[in-house]
Amino acid sequence: MTTWAWGAAIDNGQEAPAILERARADVDPELRSAVDTLPPEMRRVARYHFGWQDADGLATTAHAGKAIRPALVLTAADALGGARARTAAVRAAAAVELVHNFTLLHDDVMDRDPTRRHRATAWAVFGDPDAILAGDALQALAFRLLAGDSHPAAVPALGRLASCVVELCEGQQIDTALERREPREVGLAEVLRMAEAKTGALLGCACAIGGLYAGGSADEVDALDLFGRQAGLAFQLIDDVIGIWGDPLHTGKPAGADLAARKKSLPVVAALTSGGSAADELAALYSGPYVEGELERTALAVERAGGRDWAQAEAADRMGDAVAELARAVPDPERGGGLLALAEFVTRRSN
Amino acid sequence: MTTWAWGAAIDNGQEAPAILERARADVDPELRSAVDTLPPEMRRVARYHFGWQDADGLATTAHAGKAIRPALVLTAADALGGARARTAAVRAAAAVELVHNFTLLHDDVMDRDPTRRHRATAWAVFGDPDAILAGDALQALAFRLLAGDSHPAAVPALGRLASCVVELCEGQQIDTALERREPREVGLAEVLRMAEAKTGALLGCACAIGGLYAGGSADEVDALDLFGRQAGLAFQLIDDVIGIWGDPLHTGKPAGADLAARKKSLPVVAALTSGGSAADELAALYSGPYVEGELERTALAVERAGGRDWAQAEAADRMGDAVAELARAVPDPERGGGLLALAEFVTRRSN
Repeated sequence: MTTWAWGAAIDNGQEAPAILERARADVDPELRSAVDTLPPEMRRVARYHFGWQDADGLATTAHAGKAIRPALVLTAADALGGARARTAAVRAAAAVELVHNFTLLHDDVMDRDPTRRHRATAWAVFGDPDAILAGDALQALAFRLLAGDSHPAAVPALGRLASCVVELCEGQQIDTALERREPREVGLAEVLRMAEAKTGALLGCACAIGGLYAGGSADEVDALDLFGRQAGLAFQLIDDVIGIWGDPLHTGKPAGADLAARKKSLPVVAALTSGGSAADELAALYSGPYVEGELERTALAVERAGGRDWAQAEAADRMGDAVAELARAVPDPERGGGLLALAEFVTRRSN
Repeated sequence: MTTWAWGAAIDNGQEAPAILERARADVDPELRSAVDTLPPEMRRVARYHFGWQDADGLATTAHAGKAIRPALVLTAADALGGARARTAAVRAAAAVELVHNFTLLHDDVMDRDPTRRHRATAWAVFGDPDAILAGDALQALAFRLLAGDSHPAAVPALGRLASCVVELCEGQQIDTALERREPREVGLAEVLRMAEAKTGALLGCACAIGGLYAGGSADEVDALDLFGRQAGLAFQLIDDVIGIWGDPLHTGKPAGADLAARKKSLPVVAALTSGGSAADELAALYSGPYVEGELERTALAVERAGGRDWAQAEAADRMGDAVAELARAVPDPERGGGLLALAEFVTRRSN
């Protein structure tokens, strides 16, 4: 048995930001040199999307995202194979970040989201065709990076990443389909599958790729995938709770945003499918557009129908499963501490 | 020197259709089994797009396209490496066809084209998100197919195909940008670059990948790429001529279609940039929307401004260059006959 326990990394509370910062510093040069091979117009869109320059092409210091996925690749490689494996995996970490950003570019087009990271989205600035094409090109760049990597893990990593892209598309497909359905026609199993495909799959794939670069066994790599996948689901559950009741650490979106947008998030669907009067009230509210001032009542209906408790219990269960998988892949808690710190960071258990 | 000459395959006039039919038969099972790994909703969109089923999921016998790109992969492999190389390249041929169809799905969304191959386009039937996602997934499937291929050519082929995707995106990017510009602000060099990136690049890449699977040298593979690229440009020039003056073999789009759509095709831009009164007349016509009955006058202006002659001479030059590259890659005319037949077929020199 293992001495692993959820919360083991809590006394390393400051570890995750340092891991993320170091991953960003290591991966950025690889990422920038890949993007710089693009033809000028697509390079411009990609560099804008990454926050490296503004719409006119001037350098900016906009926030380029938290680099969680590259950090998972590098930290998993390190946990299983040490510093040399971590260094070998930098290119693969950049490939994972390219895939993540290709999906963001396309998701924003499909969802008609006007802003991301407090800036206008690429389609809003450059139009749909340029945003779609920049996304397509980033996907190709990710695979080209791996095809040009002579490490023996590169081809298995490539196959795994390609399968993950299909799963990411599946997640987004379910998401857009569910948005078009009546609130009460959406099942909890569907939204859980959507969250796993859209969020869990790439976090799991990132960890698995790190494991491949460390020369991990099939069992170890699969356990790392499940660790990332379950942590990703926990993250989505917590993120959805924050989308309704706000972020205790004041870093996320404003309280109620998801309710006003009538988003069929995990706590909402859990509430809608719970039966009882609070579920009926929520269904009635969700059947029409958002009316100014009804936020508190809607949030209360989700809470009374059990949506909040369910999401928090489910997130705890998923984190428990994640930690069990991590212990299977990396039995020494000392070596697995970085991955645990990242999982706790994304689920807002530490900052 | 070589005995190669343009037209050498003319006495094999029936060869190209047989080559295409055999390529389709060999590649289809690989293509279908790749598409069948997709999650149900995306599989439905992809199978509709390929013409294998209708919008309700019932099997159809719609025309799935001419399989020119897979045929180029297989025929190039055969020309340089014989039947064993051809067999080894079937999976790569399917990957090239997946990439081609991913770009068709996305181009139709961006161009708002309502029909393709006489059927409603995927976005028109399933909506933009499903069409974009099916395209994204087909790109990933292409790379996954190659990553799962243990042939030593698979990884170099993958890198080449990924670079080609970036070039295809560049071609479409230029195309959509030029459509937004005033007719007289478009230069001939730009439309030629657009045609090379959008059409030539993948035909060249298909030939190069065939050469890689035959174990060809870097010089041979590059020559095959240039052969396909130049033949692709010749094809686009002839296709643009047909888009104005109609297809002598009655297989293409109706005469005048491109003029009515105010398309800045190669003969039109050549005419617009030629100087003189016919260019001015054409610019004046193109500055407004198409008016019923002015087709003949517009076509005549393109012709008088030299657009038709230029396109036909340029197509002949490009075919000459293509044949020279083919002779460099495959010095024995007997072995290169299939590739020449395909090049002549796509440029309407044979049926």
